[in-house]
Amino acid sequence: MNIRSNPETTRAAVTTGALPSSKKIYATPASAPDLRVPLREIILSEGAGEPNLPVYDTSGPYTDPTVVIDVNKGLPRPRTEWVKQRGGVEQYEGRDIKPEDNGNVGAAHAAKAFTAHHQPLRGISDAPITQYEFARRGIITKEMIYVAERENLGRKQQLERAEAALADGESFGAAVPAFITPEFVRDEIARGRAIIPANINHGELEPMIIGRNFLTKINANIGNSAVTSSVEEEVDKMVWAIRWGADTVMDLSTGRNIHTTREWILRNSPVPIGTVPIYQALEKCEGDPVKLTWELYKDTLIEQAEQGVDYFTIHAGVRLQYIHLTASRVTGIVSRGGSIMAKWCLAHHKESFLYTHFDEICDLMRKYDVSFSLGDGLRPGSIADANDRAQFAELETLGELTKIAWAKGCQVMIEGPGHVPMHKIKINMDKQLKECGEAPFYTLGPLTTDIAPGYDHITSGIGAAMIGWFGCAMLCYVTPKEHLGLPDRNDVKTGVITYKIAAHAADLAKGHPAAQLRDDALSRARFEFRWQDQFNLGLDPDTAQAFHDETLPKDAHKVAHFCSMCGPKFCSMKITQDVRDYAAGLGDNEKAALYPVGHAGMTISGTIEDGMAQMSAKFKEMGSSVYLDADKVKESNKALS
Amino acid sequence: MNIRSNPETTRAAVTTGALPSSKKIYATPASAPDLRVPLREIILSEGAGEPNLPVYDTSGPYTDPTVVIDVNKGLPRPRTEWVKQRGGVEQYEGRDIKPEDNGNVGAAHAAKAFTAHHQPLRGISDAPITQYEFARRGIITKEMIYVAERENLGRKQQLERAEAALADGESFGAAVPAFITPEFVRDEIARGRAIIPANINHGELEPMIIGRNFLTKINANIGNSAVTSSVEEEVDKMVWAIRWGADTVMDLSTGRNIHTTREWILRNSPVPIGTVPIYQALEKCEGDPVKLTWELYKDTLIEQAEQGVDYFTIHAGVRLQYIHLTASRVTGIVSRGGSIMAKWCLAHHKESFLYTHFDEICDLMRKYDVSFSLGDGLRPGSIADANDRAQFAELETLGELTKIAWAKGCQVMIEGPGHVPMHKIKINMDKQLKECGEAPFYTLGPLTTDIAPGYDHITSGIGAAMIGWFGCAMLCYVTPKEHLGLPDRNDVKTGVITYKIAAHAADLAKGHPAAQLRDDALSRARFEFRWQDQFNLGLDPDTAQAFHDETLPKDAHKVAHFCSMCGPKFCSMKITQDVRDYAAGLGDNEKAALYPVGHAGMTISGTIEDGMAQMSAKFKEMGSSVYLDADKVKESNKALS
Repeated sequence: MNIRSNPETTRAAVTTGALPSSKKIYATPASAPDLRVPLREIILSEGAGEPNLPVYDTSGPYTDPTVVIDVNKGLPRPRTEWVKQRGGVEQYEGRDIKPEDNGNVGAAHAAKAFTAHHQPLRGISDAPITQYEFARRGIITKEMIYVAERENLGRKQQLERAEAALADGESFGAAVPAFITPEFVRDEIARGRAIIPANINHGELEPMIIGRNFLTKINANIGNSAVTSSVEEEVDKMVWAIRWGADTVMDLSTGRNIHTTREWILRNSPVPIGTVPIYQALEKCEGDPVKLTWELYKDTLIEQAEQGVDYFTIHAGVRLQYIHLTASRVTGIVSRGGSIMAKWCLAHHKESFLYTHFDEICDLMRKYDVSFSLGDGLRPGSIADANDRAQFAELETLGELTKIAWAKGCQVMIEGPGHVPMHKIKINMDKQLKECGEAPFYTLGPLTTDIAPGYDHITSGIGAAMIGWFGCAMLCYVTPKEHLGLPDRNDVKTGVITYKIAAHAADLAKGHPAAQLRDDALSRARFEFRWQDQFNLGLDPDTAQAFHDETLPKDAHKVAHFCSMCGPKFCSMKITQDVRDYAAGLGDNEKAALYPVGHAGMTISGTIEDGMAQMSAKFKEMGSSVYLDADKVKESNKALS
Repeated sequence: MNIRSNPETTRAAVTTGALPSSKKIYATPASAPDLRVPLREIILSEGAGEPNLPVYDTSGPYTDPTVVIDVNKGLPRPRTEWVKQRGGVEQYEGRDIKPEDNGNVGAAHAAKAFTAHHQPLRGISDAPITQYEFARRGIITKEMIYVAERENLGRKQQLERAEAALADGESFGAAVPAFITPEFVRDEIARGRAIIPANINHGELEPMIIGRNFLTKINANIGNSAVTSSVEEEVDKMVWAIRWGADTVMDLSTGRNIHTTREWILRNSPVPIGTVPIYQALEKCEGDPVKLTWELYKDTLIEQAEQGVDYFTIHAGVRLQYIHLTASRVTGIVSRGGSIMAKWCLAHHKESFLYTHFDEICDLMRKYDVSFSLGDGLRPGSIADANDRAQFAELETLGELTKIAWAKGCQVMIEGPGHVPMHKIKINMDKQLKECGEAPFYTLGPLTTDIAPGYDHITSGIGAAMIGWFGCAMLCYVTPKEHLGLPDRNDVKTGVITYKIAAHAADLAKGHPAAQLRDDALSRARFEFRWQDQFNLGLDPDTAQAFHDETLPKDAHKVAHFCSMCGPKFCSMKITQDVRDYAAGLGDNEKAALYPVGHAGMTISGTIEDGMAQMSAKFKEMGSSVYLDADKVKESNKALS
């Protein structure tokens, strides 16, 4: 795919094709049969004796082998019809694209513009536009029906074990339900506790929901830098990130071709796209924060909203009066947006224009249903700075701004830290819930120590898992390249997998009714030596299989529990089976009579001895077949001698 | 180094040489000036303006450029003198090495025996031998003085900020002191809350302490498998693991040359070595657990104790009466030692010989001061099995056995899980403290989800960090190859770094007085753009630098905060400096008068405006020098156009 020079339609250079042993399926909600809600079904081997496992699927049409992908054309835009049917919008000419939108790039380096140009929609008058406004009016939108179906993984009714799972979890007062209904979705959005980031101009979107009472979500960052990455690479990174599980993607491009890059990404993205508009605004005034103006910024908001950006990170909490609170910090202000606004404020000796013009920003964003991601410009960039006054002052202002945005009908989520040692994480969650009226929290990690550049996906994966458990709704990934450089494709994948781990560990701990289904299916496959199933049920089947095949040649597969695992051909499953039969034969009185006070185990004696003796004889009879691995190993050793 | 065929002295094939920008230094305890306690000093760049940073050093003489390494000769054995001086021991002939000790390997595959043969020592009569016995008698040994010096990183007095750090942390009732004294070490050992694993025959040992009130430690596993890895590779893995920070190493070898492999490792290891004796015992009876006998096992204990193994994993808690409790598990018994003993118990229809002969095991281990690592043979191998009756029944028995071992004078630590979702981790710690009289806990992870084979260093790093915070004394690493195959050198490093992260995150959260020094030093380096210092202060300087150099060519170094960081040449540090100057000029009344109730920030107005206006003018004057990165970027963009 050569975007620059070849105008004809070409096959995509993005990664397509199903994940291993997977089938794309579409669920149809009863209350909106025209909707097609994507899921991935992991197909298990024939001997599995259990059904295929449906899992949440962020990968879009790219993993549907029946769909012909052509990034030059973009994805279909079914949502546009939903929006128009609801009314209250007008289609209009849209703003002209100006050279400064692409950094005044010269012809030699200009990326080819996206082929189609869709006229944007925007809200008119007071008719509801945002999901929040519809929810407050008691209206269930198609997006709400869609996400409910998605969160249930297409199930039509509650799981049997759902209540038990919830009771067994620890959700710190969250209200995860046993089964998600469109009504529940509406209510959560109406109270501001969840958002469906869904710009009315992002017609290609497969809607998703972000909120504490839903599956924990993750975001992947992409975007070119001043040393230009190409449009093709960025579209490919987006497709790659969602393939592995990114629920949203932020385009943090700077440098050249920002507008064009974003257009190509949006027109090909089934997931919500977020941006930080101040970056592009800065590029429009030659990279000098002092030259920023409200008008320039507002124009950039309109430009990006018309394209279909689903959420804007806006650092409206970096107020003039807070900046000096960073004076004694070890790492000062580490947010680029935050430092840009700090510089502007001090240079002009004025309050941030993001703060003073906040009402207008709300009015503008509302017209397109762009969600706020209220930025944490004063987040701590080191353990030493965690939870300081600067950080919490900003959080308090974000709480104030949340209420203004809600009053204006906008959807809101709140960004969070950063670098926070484990013992200081929970108070971040508690304070955010309190200050921001339970608006969804969206953190960057947090990193639980500073001492491991090169491994910050791990230092932050620890904090992310914990804060997800405590109620954080979305976790922004960190790659191994954090603090060191621009992530490449491998880094993107590593970051995504790490954050899927964190999000899923959080769901498990919260007692999400469906989370443990996948762990159990994989563990059964592991125990029964269904290796292929074990790989395919994992977050990264390719790597699991490659690692396995590195050291264990195919012959050894069948006996390969040689590390620390016992398997079905070894004692444990046979013992387990025999023991199960045996234990089933014990009466309650027998058990009780033998149970010493205070011990969790049981003493086995008396009439039980016959049963045990029988088992013992049977065991010796089974002989080598229950210690298959050792026998096979001995054989292979002889072969090697 | 060819151990098999070349008898002459050859240079080591292990990794030697200092870590980047590091110097090996030796601290000398005041109360034992003959001791040389190793530390690593990270040398900072000239412009750093702060002293070099001493860090804990597990890497042994391999990173001391003044030491000539020859693995054929082994390390020096200064400890042997300490032991002899204490008396109560006799040197004796020792047990003959039998062919079965090396798996009856044929001449063609026999590894060359280690060159020297040291006659073993053992305790005689009732004289104290173990660190526990000395501590109970109020005696401070050289090992205790040594570890106190080590834990303080050679500092002679408490850090200024020590009390504040402890107050700021959350240690869940642990008693981490502001400064470690030999007396404190003795007291912790006397009450069983800490151990110094130190077989009297491991003369090469650099003693270390494992306990909740000391730095959190990590273990790395090595060892060959039936598909033979060589002795050279295993010695190299040990040296590699400790280079990156492993505090102890377990040799889990199976297959051929077990005895010889272990000898080479011990004679070259400055860290404690642990084993699971049942593995070798099993190999001596052709891999058939049913053929195991107490006599065979006892002989193996003696064999390994004479060599100098510092701790034995012994699954004495897998009792006959508990086995049926695993019947309904998803993954049954996943511990190899546990399943071996389970099979033996059922086949013989008898109580485990490890349990019935436990007193004799204690008497034997005591003579050599081999510490117990009471094994968790019934640990959960899947999320579904976490915290079940089988697991906790065994834990209760381990508590019972702990008291027996203490009464016999043995040092004890307790092994733990496994696979445990986050919300079930703390109860593991609480129950272990209660059942086992606060003996040190030593867990494998735990893994917080099952769904990511290929990434289990991460799924478990999350759980390890948390349980370390809750009080776990040592964390057994997990590599990316867990569940899939034998780890190679790269996996060993990745596992070690991941677990250093977990251990350090735990120390930070507990408020360990010295932990944050390293985070702060690195963050200062980061903020001041001392890139080389940032890399060198990290856990893996090589990787950090390589990642950085991948995408940012050297020119860009000087302006490279282009990702998400602001640096000293950019606004934030200049702003910070200016703001600090400014804020210093405000009087308390001015601050108070301007401080709106309920806000953490300050409103700035009135007389302050002059100051701000001054700063504003100065700022515009500084112009491009404070936004250096953007200017340089523009220049480089022009160069590229």
